[in-house]
Amino acid sequence: MAIRHVVMFQFVETATATQRQAVRDGLRALKARIPEIKAIQCNHDAGLQPTGNFDFCATVDFESINDYKVYQTHADHQQLIAEAIKPILKARAAVQFELE
Amino acid sequence: MAIRHVVMFQFVETATATQRQAVRDGLRALKARIPEIKAIQCNHDAGLQPTGNFDFCATVDFESINDYKVYQTHADHQQLIAEAIKPILKARAAVQFELE
Repeated sequence: MAIRHVVMFQFVETATATQRQAVRDGLRALKARIPEIKAIQCNHDAGLQPTGNFDFCATVDFESINDYKVYQTHADHQQLIAEAIKPILKARAAVQFELE
Repeated sequence: MAIRHVVMFQFVETATATQRQAVRDGLRALKARIPEIKAIQCNHDAGLQPTGNFDFCATVDFESINDYKVYQTHADHQQLIAEAIKPILKARAAVQFELE
């Protein structure tokens, strides 16, 4: 069962551009360090909606639920959450769904 | 600039399985009716997290911002929102981001 893990973040207003960039670059860097990641696309909101959007989104694809769980608990992923994401996190929304 | 539009829904507790299914089937059916949609993946949350997830997610890819805007205002898309999504919608989160 191929899975797409989708997560959105709203950052605190005081989050700097450098801190926001570190989230994106850190997530993209996980691809090379966690082989279970089949594909990852992530970026800041493009500003196409005047209000209401979250600030950032990542979509991460896995070939199985088990691969997703390896990612979820992987030390490098957990370190990125603790050091780059949590310090500037205001809100989070997530879904994991089965791909067609 | 290739764009991924990502939207998540939380449905009201009273939403029936049929109503939830109509959202998924309706969104998937848009692919055949809106040629600007390059790819669409959408489904109910797979239940891999005990709490906190949204109920549903769609990721819709476009080759340009303009194609996304055609989708956004397309009559079939607007009808689906009015008839299938809004009646059972409790919360919504969205991001549009540039693909690598």
